[in-house]
Amino acid sequence: MSPRRFETLAIDLDADGVCTLTLDRPDALNAFDLTMARELEEFFLVDARHDDVRAVVVTGRGRAFCAGMDLSAEGNVFGLDESLAPTPESLRERFDDPAYADGIRDTGGRVTLAIHALPKPVIAAINGAAVGIGATMTLGMDLRLAATTARIGFVFGRLGIVPEACSSWFLPRLVGLQQALEWVYSAEILTAGAALEGGLVRSLHEPLELVVTAQELARSFVVDRSPAALAMAKSLLYRNVAAASPLEAHLSDSLAMFYSSIGDGKEGVAAFLEKRPPHFTSSATDVPRLFPG
Amino acid sequence: MSPRRFETLAIDLDADGVCTLTLDRPDALNAFDLTMARELEEFFLVDARHDDVRAVVVTGRGRAFCAGMDLSAEGNVFGLDESLAPTPESLRERFDDPAYADGIRDTGGRVTLAIHALPKPVIAAINGAAVGIGATMTLGMDLRLAATTARIGFVFGRLGIVPEACSSWFLPRLVGLQQALEWVYSAEILTAGAALEGGLVRSLHEPLELVVTAQELARSFVVDRSPAALAMAKSLLYRNVAAASPLEAHLSDSLAMFYSSIGDGKEGVAAFLEKRPPHFTSSATDVPRLFPG
Amino acid sequence: MSPRRFETLAIDLDADGVCTLTLDRPDALNAFDLTMARELEEFFLVDARHDDVRAVVVTGRGRAFCAGMDLSAEGNVFGLDESLAPTPESLRERFDDPAYADGIRDTGGRVTLAIHALPKPVIAAINGAAVGIGATMTLGMDLRLAATTARIGFVFGRLGIVPEACSSWFLPRLVGLQQALEWVYSAEILTAGAALEGGLVRSLHEPLELVVTAQELARSFVVDRSPAALAMAKSLLYRNVAAASPLEAHLSDSLAMFYSSIGDGKEGVAAFLEKRPPHFTSSATDVPRLFPG
Repeated sequence: MSPRRFETLAIDLDADGVCTLTLDRPDALNAFDLTMARELEEFFLVDARHDDVRAVVVTGRGRAFCAGMDLSAEGNVFGLDESLAPTPESLRERFDDPAYADGIRDTGGRVTLAIHALPKPVIAAINGAAVGIGATMTLGMDLRLAATTARIGFVFGRLGIVPEACSSWFLPRLVGLQQALEWVYSAEILTAGAALEGGLVRSLHEPLELVVTAQELARSFVVDRSPAALAMAKSLLYRNVAAASPLEAHLSDSLAMFYSSIGDGKEGVAAFLEKRPPHFTSSATDVPRLFPG
Repeated sequence: MSPRRFETLAIDLDADGVCTLTLDRPDALNAFDLTMARELEEFFLVDARHDDVRAVVVTGRGRAFCAGMDLSAEGNVFGLDESLAPTPESLRERFDDPAYADGIRDTGGRVTLAIHALPKPVIAAINGAAVGIGATMTLGMDLRLAATTARIGFVFGRLGIVPEACSSWFLPRLVGLQQALEWVYSAEILTAGAALEGGLVRSLHEPLELVVTAQELARSFVVDRSPAALAMAKSLLYRNVAAASPLEAHLSDSLAMFYSSIGDGKEGVAAFLEKRPPHFTSSATDVPRLFPG
Repeated sequence: MSPRRFETLAIDLDADGVCTLTLDRPDALNAFDLTMARELEEFFLVDARHDDVRAVVVTGRGRAFCAGMDLSAEGNVFGLDESLAPTPESLRERFDDPAYADGIRDTGGRVTLAIHALPKPVIAAINGAAVGIGATMTLGMDLRLAATTARIGFVFGRLGIVPEACSSWFLPRLVGLQQALEWVYSAEILTAGAALEGGLVRSLHEPLELVVTAQELARSFVVDRSPAALAMAKSLLYRNVAAASPLEAHLSDSLAMFYSSIGDGKEGVAAFLEKRPPHFTSSATDVPRLFPG
């Protein structure tokens, strides 16, 4: 990856493939606007898929992680076309029709889906306030570390709107239904301690140690590991947590075992038996299909 | 809502729209009989849907919350018609056929489905023993607060029967599979502390402070909040916790964001920018469809 | 059940129907080979289904529970036929074709599915190292108790392969998505304490007390309990944790309530009202269908 210049993001890639993405509108508390949305989608759908990126750490410049949707933007704050009057059926049918979808599909959700689709570990390093889309975008990342001074809020109810960015899929799976319902109903700003206790964040860190800790963790996930095996493991976990039965998992993990065993697994077992580090050669973006359709 | 008189329930509605439903057969430890079942269904499907009810708190009169199915009732204790010999297919086909369904469909489940269908927050204030259907009916409520003296038991195994009232959908999502299996297998009466530690109840309270705390919590969920946005948020969380993929959540929360943004969201954003309380005008029972079919 | 002799397993059945299965290759740290796989499948699909087995406790002989796949085995370590090049569609279509399936279907998954299919409580007593398939095979068991000296590792990533044995279905449901992703990405060996804190194991025990505690727990699940009601309860929990809606649970638990109420439930209620122990007569392997298809 030769990092492009983004307007709202700063990108740094280290020698181990740990890429740090910094939300970079510090004067606006890294508020989420349409430029940031488009750039995040591009980064995760294009740049981050290059083989030299092995994992991504996401943090914010300055005091905040992301203060939420930039409500000071002009016009309809959510960029919607009120005349479209979508239904569940019409949205599904016209999902990829830009003229229709741009006026209907939730912008935060498009970003979360792009993050979620990356077949590599993604870690949030929540350095300060993470509110609204600033909170929900982290749910599509695999792990959330936070500064002791962080604040997290699913504040949609205060604005008369709903939690978005696929958060209703992720949040109850991360913190349980009861906690998810309370946080959404209360719309309160949570302390870092409450977020830890509720299971939303993995661990708390001194602000100055947060990002380096997240980078170390990312490094531990990818150094001497198979990119393809990791990509398939991520896919298996997110798909099968929602599968109807263990049998569905058996079908897909059998395929992943088959292809990893005849791929990087041969080198992995050989290295293990020879008590040396493995040398893996696969790509995270070149893996067999594990699921039908 | 102008509260009807119920035989087995007492209803109280305060000025903020917090409705307190008290199971009111204290001499029978609020045991669940067919009258109570029918009245609970009516309350949640009809009365509680009126716009002046914003949230519901459920508690029990006297020492118990609900001591379970009234086994002293005459005849077949569960009101079943043994000649019907249902199958998974026949029950599905004849689900709404009263002659067939009344002799087969689990009464506790009908009540839980009615509770679950209310597009408003429902909070259990478990003041004492909650056993059998007394325990499982609380699972379809959004949050469970309990008195320090409460006892909760999924005791079905002791009677040679199974956990009912949709509890196999709710319980493992609330406390995890391992804890759910143990509680059902053991069929033991749990202390309030064990229920808290296991994640079943949100918090414990002194008996005299339980109901007022639950009412305060309910109030904090609904005052200055949009009824329609809250209704859609509840629906999103319960549907998408079981959805196959984040994409399904993106389709439904895009619709909810669209309609809330052109509805109460306009007032919500305006009030936020003007630093004043919002004045929302929507109804919880008049929201667009978010899911197909 | 008159226990056969197995090469790799030792079987002991007590008077209460608690069957203890000991992985019995102590010189190889109970490493999992194709003989053990075949014997575990046979035990759970045939022997353990006899009515005199009421519950199963699984532990390991010697220092380890199960050190994982025996990588010293000859040939392709996973027994795969590389020429088959399976796809999600072909694996599904030819699932029961031995020539095709034996070269593709994950051996650990076949064992886990056999364990999972037993309509009786299964408890892991993890006495020492449980690594790879030694860890994942316990996920299909209902409860996991561990010795304070146990170690558990989802180490697949170190070998360039993926977590198998249906673990992507079970693990995130047991410990949440965030913890599951971290354990799989890190591929580290967890201490017993970390496994407890993460929710993977139910409780820790002194090594000498582990197995007897697991046996006592199993006994408490089955003595004076209905085999059929317990079988249906297990099925309801595992199926409905993955069901689309509470309504699906209502359909299946209505059937389970119907059939248990006209079966062992009659005796259960009578015994309860007469304040005497029940005498149940059902079989775990003779229960009505609760789900379509």
